[in-house]
Parts: sequence; C-alpha cells; structure tokens
Amino acid sequence: MLNYRKGLADMPAYDVIERPWGIKVNANECNMNLPPLVEERVMARLGCVAFNRYPNEQYDDLREQIAKYYGVQKENVLLGIGSSEIIEKIFYCFGGGEERHIVYPQPSFSMYKIYAKAAEATGVPVDLRADYTFDADAFINKVQEVKADLAVICNPNNPTGTGIPLEDIKKVADNIDCCFLVDEAYMEFYGKSAFGMLKNYPNMIIARTFSKAYGLASCRVGYMVADAKIVDMIAKAYMPYYMNVLSLVTADTCFQMRQEFVPRIQMMIAERKRMSKRYAELQGVKVYPSNTNFVLVKVPDAVALNESLVAKNIGIRSFGNAPRLENCLRLSMGLREENDRIFDEIKLFLEGRA
Amino acid sequence: MLNYRKGLADMPAYDVIERPWGIKVNANECNMNLPPLVEERVMARLGCVAFNRYPNEQYDDLREQIAKYYGVQKENVLLGIGSSEIIEKIFYCFGGGEERHIVYPQPSFSMYKIYAKAAEATGVPVDLRADYTFDADAFINKVQEVKADLAVICNPNNPTGTGIPLEDIKKVADNIDCCFLVDEAYMEFYGKSAFGMLKNYPNMIIARTFSKAYGLASCRVGYMVADAKIVDMIAKAYMPYYMNVLSLVTADTCFQMRQEFVPRIQMMIAERKRMSKRYAELQGVKVYPSNTNFVLVKVPDAVALNESLVAKNIGIRSFGNAPRLENCLRLSMGLREENDRIFDEIKLFLEGRA
Repeated sequence: MLNYRKGLADMPAYDVIERPWGIKVNANECNMNLPPLVEERVMARLGCVAFNRYPNEQYDDLREQIAKYYGVQKENVLLGIGSSEIIEKIFYCFGGGEERHIVYPQPSFSMYKIYAKAAEATGVPVDLRADYTFDADAFINKVQEVKADLAVICNPNNPTGTGIPLEDIKKVADNIDCCFLVDEAYMEFYGKSAFGMLKNYPNMIIARTFSKAYGLASCRVGYMVADAKIVDMIAKAYMPYYMNVLSLVTADTCFQMRQEFVPRIQMMIAERKRMSKRYAELQGVKVYPSNTNFVLVKVPDAVALNESLVAKNIGIRSFGNAPRLENCLRLSMGLREENDRIFDEIKLFLEGRA
Repeated sequence: MLNYRKGLADMPAYDVIERPWGIKVNANECNMNLPPLVEERVMARLGCVAFNRYPNEQYDDLREQIAKYYGVQKENVLLGIGSSEIIEKIFYCFGGGEERHIVYPQPSFSMYKIYAKAAEATGVPVDLRADYTFDADAFINKVQEVKADLAVICNPNNPTGTGIPLEDIKKVADNIDCCFLVDEAYMEFYGKSAFGMLKNYPNMIIARTFSKAYGLASCRVGYMVADAKIVDMIAKAYMPYYMNVLSLVTADTCFQMRQEFVPRIQMMIAERKRMSKRYAELQGVKVYPSNTNFVLVKVPDAVALNESLVAKNIGIRSFGNAPRLENCLRLSMGLREENDRIFDEIKLFLEGRA
C-alpha cells in the first residue's frame, strides 16, 4: 500500500543509544564542559533569546564572524548541523545516480559510505597504506579512473588519527578537477589546514566543526568554507530555518571566546602524546601515530577487551569487523585520570591474557 | 568543471533576512516570549546541559513524553527540525522520480510545492473552493486519478486559516490508500485534530510543531505521530544526531508545562475573533473565517497597502502574485495593542484611498 522511495528500505536506521558510561571516550567528544567564563557568557546570551521568533540575524552573525577570522566573505561560509550534515549535503549535491562517483579513503569516517548511498551515488573507497598513511597517487589515479564527481579526504583522518601532509593535499588538488572536500573536523589538534590553498583551487571545500575542539557536540554546529559559487549551490540543498537560534548563539559565543579553548586543546594534545607513549610500551599493542584528540590502538583480542571495559562501565569505540580495522580500538582523550584508568584496565586485561 | 546533481541549479535558494520590524506579524509566530515560569525552568535546565556531549537520551525523553500524552508508544513518534523539516522528509520518502505524485491543496503552505520539487516528485495542487473551503471530492478524485504516492492536507489551512471538518478528513482517509499526511501546525488554535483517526488508518501521519502555539520558533522542533512502521521508514531519511540538545531540552520543558500555554492560546483565539470582526466592518475588506493564530484579508490594493505598512515598520505577509492569493494579506495575531495599531494603519490607508 505505502509506496516508498526506491532504495529507502535498504537504508540503515540509526538509533544511537548510549549507556550511562562511567567513563565515556567512544565519540571523540571533549570530556570537559564549557570553560567557566564561556559558560557564563553563553547562559547570559541564551537568557536574551526571543524563543518565539524564527532564526534571523543569528545565522549571518556567525557566518560573518567565521568569515572575518579566515579573511573571507560571509558568502564563502555555509553553516550546518555539525560538519557531518554539511558533508551529507555536499554528497547529495554531487550525487543523484549510480553513474556518479564519490571517492574517499578507507578506513576513514564511516559515514562517507552511508552518505554516498543516501545520495544515490556510487561510493568508491581507496585504501590507505598498511600504516594508514595517505597514498596520494593511488587516490588521484582512482579519482581520474572513475571520473569522480566528488573526492573527499579527512585530515587528520578519523578513525586512524593520521595527519595527511599538506604537500599531499596540494598534489591531489593539482591533479583532479572534480569537487574536492577536505574534512578538517580534527584540524585543531593537528594545526595544519588546507585553508591556505582555497584561493588557488575554486573546486575545494573545507569543512570544520564545533563538536570536537570547541566541545559543543550537543549543539550540532559545523561549517564549510569555499568559493561563493559552491556555497550558493550547496545552500540549495538546505530548506529555510534549518539552524536553531540556541545553537547559533552558543557557537557564536564560543567562536568569539576561542582563546579560552586553547589551553584545553593543548592539554588534549599533551594527553594524546603521553598516552600514545604509554600504550606503545604495552606488549602486543600497536599504536598508530595520531594528530587528533584520540588514539587508535591494535590489540590481540579487541572484542574481548572491549567487553571487559564495558563490564567496567567504560565506553570506548571498537570497530568490530569494519574493513581494515580488525582488532582496533579508538580511545578519545578524556581527562588525565580517565585516560590513566582506561590504560590500567587495558594493561590488566592484556596481562591476564598473557 | 563542477558537475552538480541534476536539477540542483534550478532549486530556489533561501535567504530569509528580516528587517528589524517595529511590529512583526508576518510569520505566524507567537508575539510573546516564554511564560515566565517556563522560562525560569528552561534556563535552569539549559544550565545543566553537558554542552560537550552528543545528543543522547534527550531525544527519547521528548518522544516518550509526547507518546504518553497521546496514549501511544515512543515508536509512534518521530522528532524533526520543525514540522516543516518532517514534511520535507516525508515528501522525500515518497518521492524519487517524476512518475511519483504528491497531491496537496492550493492555496496552502507554500513549501509543499518546493518540497515536492526537492523530492524530485511531481507536485499536484488541487484547488480549494472559491471561499477556500476544502473540497474533499475533488481532492479524492485527484489522488485517485494520478495514483498519488502521498496526499497532504493542512488543517487548519495556512495561509487561508480555514479549518477542515473532521468528517471531510475521514472521507478522504476512507477513499485513498496512499500515505496521507495531515499537517496540524495550527491545530491548537482550532481544537479539532485527526489524531483519533490514526488507529483506524495505518497510512495516516499527523505532523505538529512547537513553533506556533508553544512559541518556540527559535528552537526548530516539531514531530509526527504515525504507525511505527511508517516512523521506521521516515527515520531512515535522517542521519544520526540531527537534533540538538538545547532545543530538545527546551521543547521538553515546554511540553511538560503545557498548561502554562493555555491562557495565551485562548488570548490569540480571542484576538483572532475580535480582529476578524473589526476587519469585516471595514469597507472593501473581505475577511476569511480563520481557525488559526492569523487572519487572511483581501483588500483592494494589497501591494500599495503592504508598502505603506512597511514604511511604518510593520511586517505583515503579502502574497504578491501567488496563485489565488491576489490582493491577500496574512496578519498573525500579535498583542492586542499591536493588532489595533495595524488595524488603524490599514483603516487609514483604505480611507485615504477612498
């Protein structure tokens, strides 16, 4: 009777229900709430919101602020519900048929595959090297071979943590002419952005988020920066009033007070370095070099190890049977004491197993 | 070079930029901020939000509350970014090719036409009668004739304000077997909902919003209630984490404290009746009976009248050349003194013209 859109039934459903973890390091969140000064200002601004009015100038206020910071115009900035929704919309705008190809690395952000499917496009994964470093030549060859409509890289890469050298990104940009999306969700923990290349490549888009370094995952705010003509086209995929005022005002305040976030970003980088070193000293554990706020480790029996952590009320990200991530666990960098506690549990498990 | 999705370039872009109106009655918003008791509670709850965490139980909390109120299960409830986004997603789920037909009344919510286009479906408007009442037979005939995949009505209807008798809705439901969406964005001002029919028609969806009667347009929260199988399918059009915590917590608080909104809803209904009567007494003005928080009036020269109001910093909704809305103006019911001020200006304009 109900005649749904072709392919809809095959789409996966999401029901992301979390346990109330004692320690939660499974979603690359920041494990601290807002810095006190920022929180005070956010609450003061939320107290002034006209709850009864549709969003209005708040959208452009944040766009303008972001544009000013990057030395571009607000017409170069598009906001979205986290950078993940912006990526979904970009995929949509370059999809629309199985003859359309979207190329992305593997392993990388697991949603690329799903966004490609949702966009009714053909997703084309290109393997990273065995050590998860980015193979620019293989990527370029695949983009050219399939005559891709969209090429995507994640830098630094999730879930491997690997930073891609800017020279590699430039090489890709020099050798492809389709739309080129650089997903920089974790850039603040790496420090190297492709932003400086934007002016030379009018086919390039850079996506960023407030969910990670700014610790605003609750608000769902991200943005992209690109040539104004690209922004105009991607904006067509959005309906009016898709952003809400509370999130816009909160993100705006955090962006204005971004200096307040610098110490915690440095702390998370320090923790990443400290914990990478500690894990590397554990027998049987392989640590992948990370440029993010998380560390990917390979262990002998990830499923059992994860289960033992779940039993201790610790939530980490285990990859099950995801391609090329067998026995890998991703650990977001929480507070120092949280990281140490998790390390102790993992060490205990591995020793018990030995 | 950039090879966008077919049809994307023809999609309209939205740039809803408002003037800072002295009086704003152009978007059917509530012209009062939250009731003081509710605002206090909302701010207290926002102060407890973990800004750093992705949405989690807040989504189900609100679903469960809504389900409990309606005597259904949370599996019957889907939340969205205003009911408008839910409608967009429903259109998407029943679109996907020009051979797919979506039938809706005309004149009605202007986005139906655009959502049909965005869903790559064929939009099929069915004229309301000359007095804007709903012609159930004409609607049923068209749904059957085009073998529609989705039929939509807006009750009470925007922008005409007309309430559709529940018997007419039942008649439609009895005579069509495609998905049947009843958009009840303004139901609270009418009091007659098709909700009671849901259990008898597993193809029926009811959409509601927090933007109008609850005065939460800033937050962008709406919901639909339907058979769990329909909810499961429409949910597939959504990506994880599309709702933000701040809006969910605010809507949840307002729904819990919904009794606090009753007096203002009654006040808006009283204002609608009072102003409808006053406008009807003006020579040359036709007032359409309204069951919403706005009134549609037909005047001799809407364009010039609107311009004179704009010059006085009053924002109303003028329909320009929209089909069958020539010379019509839509006036949301603001505060009593705002409504009177607008009336005086309109009266002055019409007298000057006479």
